[in-house]
This record gives sequence, structure tokens and C-alpha cells, in this order.
Amino acid sequence: MANVSKKVSWSGRDLDDDEAAPLLRRAPRPGAPAGEAAPLLNGAGPAAARASPHSAFFRIGQLSSVELDDELLDPDMDPPHPFPREIPHNEKLLSLKYESLDYDNSENQLFLEEERRINHTAFRTVEIKRWVICAMVGILTGLVACFIDIVVEKLAGLKYRLVKDNIDRFTEHGGLSFSLLLWAALNAAFVLLGSTIVAFVEPVAAGSGIPQIKCFLNGVKIPHVVRLKTLVIKVSGVILSVVGGLAVGKEGPMIHSGSVIAAGISQGRSTSLKRDFKIFEYFRRDTEKRDFVSAGAAAGVSAAFGAPVGGVLFSLEEGASFWNQFLTWRIFFASMISTFTLNFVLSIYHGNAWDLSSPGLINFGRFDTETMVYVHRPCLQVVEATLVAAVTATAAFVLIYSSRDCQPLRGSSVSYPLQLFCADGEYNSMAAAFFNTPEKSVVSLFHDPPGSYNPMTLGLFTLVYFFLACWTYGLTVSAGVFIPSLLIGAAWGRLFGISLSYITGAAVWADPGKYALMGAAAQLGGIVRMTLSLTVIMMEATSNVTYGFPIMLVLMTAKIVGDVFIEGLYDMHIQLQSVPFLHWEAPVTSHSLTAREVMSTPVICLRRREKVGVIVDVLSSTASNHNGFPVVEDADGTQPARLQGLILRSQLIVLLKHKVFVERSSMGLLRRRLRLKDFRDAYPRFPPIQSIHVSQDERECTMDLSEFMNPSPYTVPQEASLPRVFKLFRALGLRHLVVVDNCNQVVGLVTRKDLARYRLGKGGLEELSLAQT
Amino acid sequence: MANVSKKVSWSGRDLDDDEAAPLLRRAPRPGAPAGEAAPLLNGAGPAAARASPHSAFFRIGQLSSVELDDELLDPDMDPPHPFPREIPHNEKLLSLKYESLDYDNSENQLFLEEERRINHTAFRTVEIKRWVICAMVGILTGLVACFIDIVVEKLAGLKYRLVKDNIDRFTEHGGLSFSLLLWAALNAAFVLLGSTIVAFVEPVAAGSGIPQIKCFLNGVKIPHVVRLKTLVIKVSGVILSVVGGLAVGKEGPMIHSGSVIAAGISQGRSTSLKRDFKIFEYFRRDTEKRDFVSAGAAAGVSAAFGAPVGGVLFSLEEGASFWNQFLTWRIFFASMISTFTLNFVLSIYHGNAWDLSSPGLINFGRFDTETMVYVHRPCLQVVEATLVAAVTATAAFVLIYSSRDCQPLRGSSVSYPLQLFCADGEYNSMAAAFFNTPEKSVVSLFHDPPGSYNPMTLGLFTLVYFFLACWTYGLTVSAGVFIPSLLIGAAWGRLFGISLSYITGAAVWADPGKYALMGAAAQLGGIVRMTLSLTVIMMEATSNVTYGFPIMLVLMTAKIVGDVFIEGLYDMHIQLQSVPFLHWEAPVTSHSLTAREVMSTPVICLRRREKVGVIVDVLSSTASNHNGFPVVEDADGTQPARLQGLILRSQLIVLLKHKVFVERSSMGLLRRRLRLKDFRDAYPRFPPIQSIHVSQDERECTMDLSEFMNPSPYTVPQEASLPRVFKLFRALGLRHLVVVDNCNQVVGLVTRKDLARYRLGKGGLEELSLAQT
Repeated sequence: MANVSKKVSWSGRDLDDDEAAPLLRRAPRPGAPAGEAAPLLNGAGPAAARASPHSAFFRIGQLSSVELDDELLDPDMDPPHPFPREIPHNEKLLSLKYESLDYDNSENQLFLEEERRINHTAFRTVEIKRWVICAMVGILTGLVACFIDIVVEKLAGLKYRLVKDNIDRFTEHGGLSFSLLLWAALNAAFVLLGSTIVAFVEPVAAGSGIPQIKCFLNGVKIPHVVRLKTLVIKVSGVILSVVGGLAVGKEGPMIHSGSVIAAGISQGRSTSLKRDFKIFEYFRRDTEKRDFVSAGAAAGVSAAFGAPVGGVLFSLEEGASFWNQFLTWRIFFASMISTFTLNFVLSIYHGNAWDLSSPGLINFGRFDTETMVYVHRPCLQVVEATLVAAVTATAAFVLIYSSRDCQPLRGSSVSYPLQLFCADGEYNSMAAAFFNTPEKSVVSLFHDPPGSYNPMTLGLFTLVYFFLACWTYGLTVSAGVFIPSLLIGAAWGRLFGISLSYITGAAVWADPGKYALMGAAAQLGGIVRMTLSLTVIMMEATSNVTYGFPIMLVLMTAKIVGDVFIEGLYDMHIQLQSVPFLHWEAPVTSHSLTAREVMSTPVICLRRREKVGVIVDVLSSTASNHNGFPVVEDADGTQPARLQGLILRSQLIVLLKHKVFVERSSMGLLRRRLRLKDFRDAYPRFPPIQSIHVSQDERECTMDLSEFMNPSPYTVPQEASLPRVFKLFRALGLRHLVVVDNCNQVVGLVTRKDLARYRLGKGGLEELSLAQT
Repeated sequence: MANVSKKVSWSGRDLDDDEAAPLLRRAPRPGAPAGEAAPLLNGAGPAAARASPHSAFFRIGQLSSVELDDELLDPDMDPPHPFPREIPHNEKLLSLKYESLDYDNSENQLFLEEERRINHTAFRTVEIKRWVICAMVGILTGLVACFIDIVVEKLAGLKYRLVKDNIDRFTEHGGLSFSLLLWAALNAAFVLLGSTIVAFVEPVAAGSGIPQIKCFLNGVKIPHVVRLKTLVIKVSGVILSVVGGLAVGKEGPMIHSGSVIAAGISQGRSTSLKRDFKIFEYFRRDTEKRDFVSAGAAAGVSAAFGAPVGGVLFSLEEGASFWNQFLTWRIFFASMISTFTLNFVLSIYHGNAWDLSSPGLINFGRFDTETMVYVHRPCLQVVEATLVAAVTATAAFVLIYSSRDCQPLRGSSVSYPLQLFCADGEYNSMAAAFFNTPEKSVVSLFHDPPGSYNPMTLGLFTLVYFFLACWTYGLTVSAGVFIPSLLIGAAWGRLFGISLSYITGAAVWADPGKYALMGAAAQLGGIVRMTLSLTVIMMEATSNVTYGFPIMLVLMTAKIVGDVFIEGLYDMHIQLQSVPFLHWEAPVTSHSLTAREVMSTPVICLRRREKVGVIVDVLSSTASNHNGFPVVEDADGTQPARLQGLILRSQLIVLLKHKVFVERSSMGLLRRRLRLKDFRDAYPRFPPIQSIHVSQDERECTMDLSEFMNPSPYTVPQEASLPRVFKLFRALGLRHLVVVDNCNQVVGLVTRKDLARYRLGKGGLEELSLAQT
């Protein structure tokens, strides 16, 4: 493969000495697995022989596919896989298993015809549909949040009452180990179930899903991430893990849930349920879907924290690249509807429909992240999760048992006060922190009067809960990281506040609850590294703007200090998964690289009118799993073939499936006129090429791509610097960017992987290796 | 000119019949003033004759400039100005007097060399400088806000006390007409002064400056808008007009002030003061300046309303196009610093440094807009402003005088209670609304207990103040529209609340102050049409998240209802000024247009090595005031000349000024190596070509543009649809976009004006005419 690559580079020399030179200087990519990373040459089949010698890629085309296979089998070649097949988690690698999404419309003839047919009024209808979808997304997200909240409340209440009764009974008679067993067994059972469905049914539902949604909005396709099945597993999983007493929250997963709901509704059908409602067909493409997923994520935040503005900001800060006012308004609308629905339904559930005092799942929640990092076998994952549930219960029990921190019951907000060895009318303060859902513990730490916790209790709790949360974080359960972070932060924040008053002895530092709030903000900010959106979320969740300024300062400080040492949690996980994620800007020192050094080359090009056989071979070639192919002029041998357009694998698949062939004189195949609808119906699960049968006769037919290709793909010259290429790519959400030479001939193709592999490391610019896994 | 244009189009025919055809079909632009709107052909001077016949623009070049001048004088031609010189305000026109800013870096060799020289550590220094600048912007903006606040408070206090004493005296003894005279005269004097400095010294300081800053961030250069002089006039003007009792606020102008401060500091020098501090030289280009101006605008909002998050959102909603997380954080930082500085200084001023209870200029402000709409002569403008001031005082006086609405003094927050004909211990309620700065009146309407105003008072006040505000809005004074809008809204909102309780007779609708708040939000939202940012600003200004949701609903409704009828105030004014403003998206029905129909053609191209004489002629030609010139290959007659780069007028000017000529064998001119610094020193006020003397000998020299041109300008093919071109242009903040054909030859150039002229009108797509004024 490296040989082939070199051959191509050399062949460029005929064309232009100056420009070919850097190609030669270019170091071969050390980690590029042969045949898949670097696009494989192929070309225009036998016809290419007629191509002009000025065309670099047509020269390549002269190697027939037979020759090529021979070369691949050549024992002198580099081994096809210099890296072992399985290098699952390495932050110096970039995985090739993730495809890109198409956030740039393919403006082919069909698309333009449709757009031109649609008049002003029809566009208004489309616009109204967008708002309707956003409203539906808001309502459904709110309802799902309600469902989670109510079920968790019911189940957790049942569990805590059962255990409390048991503890109360055995405290008097002795034999508290039975209570421990009961508690641990109950937790383990819930988590066992929750972990099982995640590990065996839909592993992508593990964690909070925030990194996955970040990747989706960034333009990376994570398989299964917005499917209905994922939503069902996610919702059940999060209920079970919260009720199972893990150190997790139910708020983060709401973001993922909102996104799935949005992706589903906006398509007007469910592929899993095989139902097509024949509505919203206009929105069946990646660009539109992304916009709705942004709205869904915002609605999720909004439902989780009762923070509609915070939701919009989250969506923008974490996801969007091109700020569009209209989109922002729709997102805002979905957020508002979501929090309103939740509020309304919960108010009805709590008995007063017009109270509207429950804008969010809790006034402080927690999102969590993709797990399955090191334990890979589903069975082991389930065992680990169950173990953690039991250990959590045991650790809590031991701490509560050994705690002598008793507080008067009067004026306290504790839901399930445990008396244990305290005097009558008192409760165990450690139990207030542990024997409760974490949401309620956070609120207790914020609002319980000074003196409700003694420093020893807080210190021990912080320490133990911190380690539990760290361990829990890696489990294969649906869970959020927000609430545990807030809880840990609230505990040490309160401890800090108490210490201050001890040291100074002054009443100036009165309310430890305020310090708990700041500690919670700092801990969470340090973990997820959000600033603007988190400030607003915290402000909205406290329903008090007064704390806005100190929260901002705390979050800004946490971010600056954190960034000195390490990246945020979400970014770390995206990197661990080797996802080709594009950050906001190209690395600062990357001006020394140009498109010529960055691009993949050689590029497989197709001709405007191409043999069906050639197309099938290109698509079937296991060596090339490309998704975009530049289309060039039909070479007539007299002049160089220039770039004419770009066509996607998915489009070719649809064309082949519908047999859109130009008849050969002798055959008389009917040529059916394809419509945009045919492409939309196939979206987003296009069949693989193997499922399409093409007969030997059909292979000899021709396909006219003119109508289907994007006739104006974005291009850059070879001299463009990496930051320039990056900016174009990122701002427009591209998937393929064609690099052309001075004569508009294709010399290379830049894809997401080519850009994502440059990172700023400790010692300057680093180049990540590419891997299949 | 039309002839010339046609000739060119025809000449394209030789090249490609298919592609030339649409050129022919293209309707001539009705309003395009000959010689300036459509770029003038010129070309490569005599050398062009050697060019290949395949090159459309080189064909044009064959017309020598002499021929061209003849043609321009040809009596058969269209008149050069089909529209009269002065059509100042017409929303169907697009003005050509506004230039674009360059938000796309010119990545020429010098720039790349510098970037490549800078290592990782140096980039960190640059980054730190950015933060330092943002901190300074925040501090200075906060201080300016303090200054305005304190001076207004002092002067207004003086005025109201004077008038109040006078009224109190004359109420008993009769002769209140003297009080009226005193009041009217005082107001008129302040406004006379404020209006004079604006009208005669710096007209661009009129209004709030928000539309101008919107345009600046959008990429339109409004002359003088970020100069020091403008800041001084703005600050003095706003103080005088607020003290002069006009229906204006002091908050809007803070946004403009913050922007000027940011633009000034970030450049490390003041061109007006002729001081260069030799710092921050790296930031002397449009791209960097824009980022700082965004931060300045946010700091301004933050200082005006004590709403740092709202400031960031304002900046993003109104200005930014590419959402960048890093930029957002810096903007947020500047906002925070600004509100903190204001808070801190005002707290010290009010006697308690640690109180920090004054986060904004007021907890509800108002921005205003560019005026000078119909009265053009400065003297008349001053007279009008003075008249309005006197009329405002008179109208207020008459209303107060005839009002019989007396309220008890106890528990009221009125600053200057007027007793007039009320019983002792009571005050005139109409006076509470009128005899006060509007900021305080708003707060009274929000917070005074039920019954403080009777419905008649509110109704009359709304009506009169509405008309006063409308009239005031068009004056040549520095003033904001936020506060008057809030005041009007608060008045009818309160009236609405009172009416509700009258009608229902129930105590459910208790507090009219809440309705005042909603009315204020609705009125302001209907006028400026902001949603997300205004929600946050109102939330932060009320220091209460509880009202967030109703405010959102109200703002969303106001926007939807308003949009059915007409655009927002700022957009209307931008349109009235015929500014080539680019909205978020291309008009929905514009897919039928392609780059070919939109672009300006023919294009003046320069060669890589170009005769100095040719360049001077191109730049001097009054017929072509272009600012960007595609650079093409040195044609050797054997092949078509292809696009090689793009060079700006400003760069050429600097090159000519420094006489960067390649020596002719006989002359031996020294060739000095230019550095990027030379370009930065000249930024942003590049001298006109007329000020540069080029001798006849020098005209024969050659200039090598390779090093200075941008070698990778963005290009689009002719087939690209308008929305596609628009998206590229808008997302990347371009100034020139080169349209190339299949062979990478220049066929046209798209500039801001070519895109901004397509609007969605009532009947579908409209094309605006271009005008010089």
C-alpha cells in the first residue's frame, strides 16, 4: 500500500514539479493501516487508459483492480495492519470506526429542483413544522422526565421505608447486620437489573450520553446513539441505578433522552418499529436532524434542572458550531415547553395543578459519561455494577453505624430520618447524607441550618463518597455525573464554611449552606469545565440571580485551574474513545502544515458517466471504505479531467438499488426517474453494497451521475494552511473537502480524520495514529 | 457601462457556450450606477494582449484604459447615475458607500512566516494578552458607566430640586407659568448643548449606536464608529440628553461606548491622539478587532443592566456569526469585570465599598438607535432637539398641572414628590411618572404598592409619553430606546393589571407591579425583537429567576406578533440606512439563483508580477473603487491564466508607499523587504492612492505580489446556489469570494453587496437597487 501511495506521488511529478515535491517529502503515516486509512487508488476502470497523462488520479486508474489485488498480496509490502486489531483505549490513537455525518447539504440537481419548486408559502409551512416538532420534543421530553421522577420517587420511597423500618426494628433488638444485608441486597438487585439491560441490550445507553451527544452534534456518527431502543434502555436503566443507590444522578441522561426524542420525532417515523408516518419527510437528512437534536438536548437540560436558558446555552456551548438566531429561538422554545410540561404534570401529580413549583427534576442534577472503559465482557460488567451497589450500601451502612453525630429532628428537611443510637427526637446526621437519594442530600447540605452536620461527618462523607463516585463512574449503567459531583462539592464546601467560622470565630462567615453551594459549583465546574451554561443552569436552579456573580468566579477559577492540569471529563472520554472530534480551532502552531500535507491521497474519482461495474467494484472494495467520491469530467483524452462534483456512497447505493442505469442499446433496461424521496426513504440506514445484486449485464451499463452529485463541493488549493482548512471544515460542518490544484484537478481529499489527528501536546503539535478500533 | 458589461458577457461565449448563456439572460441591474457598482473591467495593461483567448477577463483587458474612458464618455451610454445622487433613506436601496471589514485573515507569505515563527509559548503570551485586554475593557467600560451614572445623578438632582423648589413656591402664590418656563428652559439648554456637539462634532454618536455596532460585527465598516472622539461625544451627549429630560435612556449608548473602548485598547494606540504604545501589535487587523469589539459590547450591556450573562448573549445574538467557545469565555470575562467594576466603584461612591448592590446602571435600561433620518442640516437638527426638550417639559407640566390624582406620601419611593394642589402629606401621582428620570419612573411603576396610580393617570401618561418617545427617537442626540420602551410598557402593563382587578373584582390579580413588569418586557421585546438575550437581561435585572418563564412567554409572543407585521426597530434602521447587512440565512426562496447570476463581473485581475503603472491606474480609476483583486498567473500566452491568489487594495497601497518594486536593470532601486509590521502600522487608516507619488520611471517597474497576496482565497464554482454562497460568506466573514470556472479561471467576484441585495419581500424574492449614497 505504501508503495502504491508512493507511485502516485511520483506520478504527480509529471504534472508540476514544484507541487509534487512536497508530496514526496511527506512522511508516510506510521499508524495508517494499509488499504483503509489512506484512500485506495482505483479509478475509472479500463476507460481510464484513455485519460490524459496530465491527470494524476487517472494515472492511478491505469492500475486495474486485478493488478491492485496482486499488489495487496505482495509479500514485500508493509503488513496491512502494523497495529494489532484491538487497541481499544488509547488517547494517542484516532479510531477509524466512526463515520462522519453530513452537515453540508448535497445540493444536487434533485435537491435544487425541489427547493426551486417550493414557493414562499410552502417554506412557511416547513418553518411551522419545525416549530411544531420543537413543541412536541419539548412536551415529550418533559413527560419522560416526569415519568423518571415519579417512578424513582415511588421506588426509592418504597426501598427507604422498608430499610428504615427494618433498621428501626433491629436497632432496639440488635442484629443490624440483617438490615445491612437487606439494604445491600435490594440495591444490588436493582443495579443488577439495570446493568444487565444496558450491558446486554444496548451498551450505548451506559453513562449519561453527554459525550455521545457532543460527538453527534460535532458531526461524528456514534452507532445506535439516537435510536428508540437506546431511549427505552436509558430510561429504565437510569431509574434502576438511581433507585439502586449508586452514586449517580438522573439528570445527565435526560439530555441524551431529549436528543433521542428529537431525532425520532423529526424524522416522522421509527425505523425500529417499522412505522413511517409519512410526515416531516423534508427533514430526513443529517443537517436538519442535527438542528432538532440540539433542541432535544436543550429540552433535556431544561427538564433536568428547570433551566431553559441554561439548556440553550448548553446546547450552543457543547454542540453548535454555527450560531444561527432562528435555530436558537427554536431551541429556546423547545426548552421552555419542556420545563413547562414537566412543571405542569408534576404539579398535577403533587395535587395542585397551578402551583407550578417543580420546574426541573431537581434543583441540582448530574450528567454522566460513557463507561465500558476497561471491563469489556458484558457479564463482568454486570457483576462489577452489582458489586459496586452492594459496596456502596455497605460503606454507607458502616459510616452511619459508626457515626455519633446526632441532630435534633425539629426544623430539619430529612426525608427518612434514622434514629439508630441517637436520643429520641434526634436523627443520625451521617444517615441524612447517605440514606437518601443524592438529589435530596444536596438540597439538605445547601439548606439545613448551621450546625446540622459536624465537620467529622462531612469530612468522612466527602472522602468515602468521592471514591464511590469515581468507581461508579466507570460502570455499565445509565447514570449521570452531575449530582455526585455536586454532592461531593457541597460536602466539602460546607466543611470549608464551618472551618472558616471555627478559625475566625466570627459570625461574618455565617451560613455554611452558601459555601456548600459554591463548593458544589466548583467541584462540578472542575469536572465538566463548562462556564457560561453552567453559570446559568446554577442560577436558574437556585432561582436566585444574587449568587450568579460568585458562581461565575468559582466556575471560571475551577476551569482555569483545571485546564492547567488536564482536560475536562467529557473531552477525556471522547479522546479515550479515539473519536475524531473537531475542537473549536485548529492547534495554534499548525500554520506550518498545509492542505497538501494533511490530505488523504490518492483519491478515488468517478466520472460523470461511469460504468456500473466500476462503481460496484469501488464500493465493494474492502480496501476502500470511503464515503465520498469526487466526480470528474468524462475524459476524452484531449485535456485534463477536472473536478465536477462530489457524490456520496449512500447516494450511489440508492442509485444502484433502483438500477438507475442508462440503457445500453441492446438491453433496454427501463430507466426510472429517481426522486429525492427515494433518498429520504433510505435515510439514515442505507443498505450495504453486498445486499445489492448487480448482474454481469448490468455491470456493463453506464450510470449518469450528473443529476445526483453535488455540483459545487467546497474546495481548497493545496497551499491552504491547516487552520484555514480547519475553519472551513468546522464552520460549514463538512464531511469531505476536495483539494484541487491550479487547474482544478483533484489532488486529495480532506476528511474529519485528517484534521482531528493533529493535537496540541505538551511538546507542540502531535500527530495521532489511526486505528481500526 | 452596460455596453461594456454586455461585451464581456458575450466574450465569455467563446469559452463555453453552456456557461455563457445564463450570463446573457441575466437582467441588467436597474439601479447599478455605472462604473462603480459593477466592477469595471481593466486588466493587465498592454501585456494582456498576449493573454490566451481562453481567458474571459484577459479579453477584457484588451480594452486599454483609454478606450475605456472613451466609452465612459460615449453619449449613447446609460447615464452614469440613473438615480439622483441623494436618495438618503429608502429601504429598497442598498448603499454603496459602506465598505466591508476583513474578517477572513489574509494568509499571505508574511503572515504564515510569522505564524510559523511563533512557537507554542509565544501563542500562550498572545492568549494571555487577549485576556488582559478583556480585563481592561471590562474595567474601563465599568468606569465610564460609573462616570455617566454619577454625573447624571448630580445634574438631574440639581435640576429637579431647583424646579421642585420653584414649583413649591409658586403653587402657593400662583404664577406656575414661571416654573414651566424654568423647567422648559433648563431642559432645552441641556439638550441644545448635547444636540450641538453631536450634530456638529460627531454625527455618528447620535442614537444608541446599537445598529452601528450590529453592522460592525456583521462586517460593515461604518466610518468613525469606533473612534475616541465618538466615545467622548457619546458620553457627554448621553449625559446631556438624559439630564435634559428627553424620553431617552443612558443604557443603550453604553454598548457603543464599550465597543469603542474595546476597539481602542486592543490596538494599543490611538490614531486620534497620535499615540502608539507599541503594544498589542498582533491584534491590528479586522478579525482580532471584531472579537474585542464583541467583548466590549457585552461589557457595555453588562454595565448598563448588571447582566453579565445577558451581555454575552446580546453579543452573540446580535453580532457573532461563528460561535467560538474560547471567544465566548473571554467575552464573559469582560462582562463580569465590567459589572464588578461598576458595582465596586458605585458602592464606594455610595459609601459602602462592600455592599456591591449596584451591579448595573439601573435595574432596567434602554438602548436607542441611529437617528438623523429626515432632518439633515445640523442646525435644524439642533433646533428640533431643543424644541422636543421644551415640548416634553411643557407636555409633562400640563399633564401634572391638570392631574387630580393625589397619593399619600407614606411608603412611596418617589424621589422628588410634587405636592401642587394635593393635600398635605400627599403628592401628585402624575408627577411621579413625569418629574423624574425615566429609570426611576420605571422602578416606581414596578414597585409602588397597588393604588399608587389611578387608571386615568396611567392611560394619559402612556399616550403622551408614547408620542414623545416616538418623536424623540428621531433626534440627533445620544440616547437609548430601552428605558422609554420599558416605561411605556410598564405604564400600560400596570393599567392592564388594574383593569383586570376592576373587571373581575377578585384579589387574584393583585399586584399591578407584576403586570407592569410584563408590559415593559412586551413593549421592549416588540420594539427590539430580542428573545434569549433580553430574557436573561430582564431576569438578571430583576434579580429574580421566578419571572423568567412569564417573561420568556411575553417576549416570544411579542416577537411572533411583531414579526407578522414588520421588522424590529434596529433592522428597520439598518435597512433605512441602506446598509449591506447580511442576515443569518439567505432568503428561503433563493435556491433558484446561482453564483453566476449573483456575482459582479467582469473582474479586474492583476498578474503575479505586475507593472507598477497598471496597479496605480487600477487603484486610481474613479470608475473602480474595488478593494480586492484576484491575482492570476503571469500569462505566457500558451495556457489560460488561472487564479493564484487575492490581494487587497490596502495591501497594494502599502506596497506602493514603501516602493516595493523589483529593480529594472537600468534603475537599481533598492528593494526593501517589507514586514507584517508595515501593514499593521498602516492599519486601519490606509492612505488614499492620490497621496502616493509614483514617478514615470517607477511606473515602468514591476511589483512581485506573490509574497503579499493571499494564496488560498476561498472560491466557488459558478453553479453554486445563492444559499450556498451565502453560507460560506457569512460563516467565514468573507469580504471577497472569487467565482471560478471549471479551469480555475476567474469569472466573477462576489462581495457583500451582491448578497445583501436579495431580500425576501411580500411577493417573494426582491432585488434591491444599488445607490451611491
